[in-house]
Amino acid sequence: MTTRPATDDPVLLTPGPLTTSAATRAAMLHDRGSWDAAFNALTASVCRDLVSIAHGEGTHVCVPLQGSGTFAVEAALGTLVPRAGRVLVPDNGAYCRRILRILEILGRDAVALRFGEDEVTDAARIGEALAADPSITHVAMVHCETGTGILNPLDAIADVVARHGRRLIVDAMSSFGAIDIDLRETPADAVVTASGKCLEGVPGMGMAIVRQATLESAQGNSHSLSLDLHDQWRYMLATTQWRFTPPTHVVAALHAALAQYRDEGGLPARAARYRAQCTALVDGMRALGFVPFLPAAVQAPIIVTFHAPGDPTWGFPEFYRRMRERGFILYPGKLTQVDTFRVGCIGAISTGDIGRMLDAVAATLADMGIRMEPADAH
Amino acid sequence: MTTRPATDDPVLLTPGPLTTSAATRAAMLHDRGSWDAAFNALTASVCRDLVSIAHGEGTHVCVPLQGSGTFAVEAALGTLVPRAGRVLVPDNGAYCRRILRILEILGRDAVALRFGEDEVTDAARIGEALAADPSITHVAMVHCETGTGILNPLDAIADVVARHGRRLIVDAMSSFGAIDIDLRETPADAVVTASGKCLEGVPGMGMAIVRQATLESAQGNSHSLSLDLHDQWRYMLATTQWRFTPPTHVVAALHAALAQYRDEGGLPARAARYRAQCTALVDGMRALGFVPFLPAAVQAPIIVTFHAPGDPTWGFPEFYRRMRERGFILYPGKLTQVDTFRVGCIGAISTGDIGRMLDAVAATLADMGIRMEPADAH
Repeated sequence: MTTRPATDDPVLLTPGPLTTSAATRAAMLHDRGSWDAAFNALTASVCRDLVSIAHGEGTHVCVPLQGSGTFAVEAALGTLVPRAGRVLVPDNGAYCRRILRILEILGRDAVALRFGEDEVTDAARIGEALAADPSITHVAMVHCETGTGILNPLDAIADVVARHGRRLIVDAMSSFGAIDIDLRETPADAVVTASGKCLEGVPGMGMAIVRQATLESAQGNSHSLSLDLHDQWRYMLATTQWRFTPPTHVVAALHAALAQYRDEGGLPARAARYRAQCTALVDGMRALGFVPFLPAAVQAPIIVTFHAPGDPTWGFPEFYRRMRERGFILYPGKLTQVDTFRVGCIGAISTGDIGRMLDAVAATLADMGIRMEPADAH
Repeated sequence: MTTRPATDDPVLLTPGPLTTSAATRAAMLHDRGSWDAAFNALTASVCRDLVSIAHGEGTHVCVPLQGSGTFAVEAALGTLVPRAGRVLVPDNGAYCRRILRILEILGRDAVALRFGEDEVTDAARIGEALAADPSITHVAMVHCETGTGILNPLDAIADVVARHGRRLIVDAMSSFGAIDIDLRETPADAVVTASGKCLEGVPGMGMAIVRQATLESAQGNSHSLSLDLHDQWRYMLATTQWRFTPPTHVVAALHAALAQYRDEGGLPARAARYRAQCTALVDGMRALGFVPFLPAAVQAPIIVTFHAPGDPTWGFPEFYRRMRERGFILYPGKLTQVDTFRVGCIGAISTGDIGRMLDAVAATLADMGIRMEPADAH
């Protein structure tokens, strides 16, 4: 179990940036040269680890990219979807719609397949859409939709996409490292994540794990120099270096975080810890009267959306401020139709932190004069 | 004078990442929430400082962007040059050619105006090119061309561009903060830099100081969602937050670095320190027999290109390795025609570090059995 660092910083219960360990942050106390072999060995080690976590050895390569996770998603779409491609986007949340917006700006043809924000993107409906439209070349999906916290059925979708002979790009931003993705069994051209999510690094870079054969044929697709994963990969292959100045401290922090990830026991241990934290959070919030937005069966152990209390005294800004004073940073909702807020359960924290957070919620509700009854099981 | 931190890390004598101060790195020991007011106050403070350093108050705004400096240059070109624009690029080095490559990928019409790599981009020739081609809408120039270390005449070029009624975009990556850019006197639509250069932050974000009126009319120009400075600015204006996950630790480091920048005495003090370090470097290397590539009159006090010794025993990889063992990281040359290497003179270092580096060069040359005579004045 990871121990939370001894600082007075509030605990970040958000989808990222997360609370990181002291060891991860201490890795940033050194300056490193971007041309230097010692730094390039860190990059290579991070890339090997990422491919290994996804079981992509021999088929996939890791291409790191400067910027936020969205930069890496845009880079994957721009690099891997040919300009004449057509992309089906199963849409059950804000990050699905971000993919659609990117494709529109890139001038790549896109088709949205709408789902409710509380229902998973269903493989059967995706299969029907692919059967009905042979011009669709790619499916771009979000694994854990951070807008709500719902877990979409990656394995079933990958299966149906492969059976229809189409290609799959997975935004696994907030799932990678905590929810198993096995590229040996789950065919995907690319799986995209970022440094500051379940691997518990600090934010500042994205990583795309890309099928090498696809990447090799992707030269000239990209709409951008900075976001060209083919060019980034080729350069790195030839020189061991990043094309443009890398965020050296962020890379070093991720390298340190990955060592702790292995020490903790890899994906099974990280998944178990997050599940325990999520269960403690949901059970504790239910006992306080909060109702989760999602059915338990589709809730990923990453971030939980709760309905706002009906009490007229409730206001998220006020609740946020008081919770922050007690040492916990929460996250606003991202739904347009329903008044909600979100609480993350990932990062270098423990169930003890969740317990203390629940105590703080109870005290904050009392301070605000909000009274609720325990919520029923969903 | 900034004191170099007490770590055993080698001194980075490169164009970035640089050696940073212990205080700058210590700012990264805290995790911060991207939605939190305390973090957003750091971003706002950084942006105010950047506008102030360029004297752009009331006319220009600072738009920070995740990624390396090149990401911000691409973002400025993509956002500020309309799709029907035509860009003149005075070219005397590798970073000028990078601008040309970006414009080609973006599908923006570009015209290169070639200069020798050891001559500045001349304002008179630029004026002639503008007079001869009224379809040119923009000039995109590099201030200090890091490929060689040459300082291009920004003020004269800005003047001629304005007189011809065209718009100017300045890649000031390695000059900003150390070489004066006064937007009150030097008309420019955008000045672009990055966190890990002369402001002595760590790498991981770029910053564009953009004329507000130009930015306001730039909606829909960008080829990219991630690199859309208009969208980034609008979102930040409305929410005080970054659009996508910010590199929180990098922002905090830059905020700390800017406090030290002010404490040191701002631009005049930083410029004086870098000039002293550059003079010590050039004089010392000359005394050891190394010949600078550039005439002293056009040498920026940022990074110095030296000719490789004629001695057949010379090899930069071997020299680099031995210098690294002695605690100094140098930089390879970026010229295709001439065998050179580069030594940076920026970062949280002192002339004492330069002196120790010169001692290390002398010892390394002796170890390698390379004998040289002191170089004549250039």
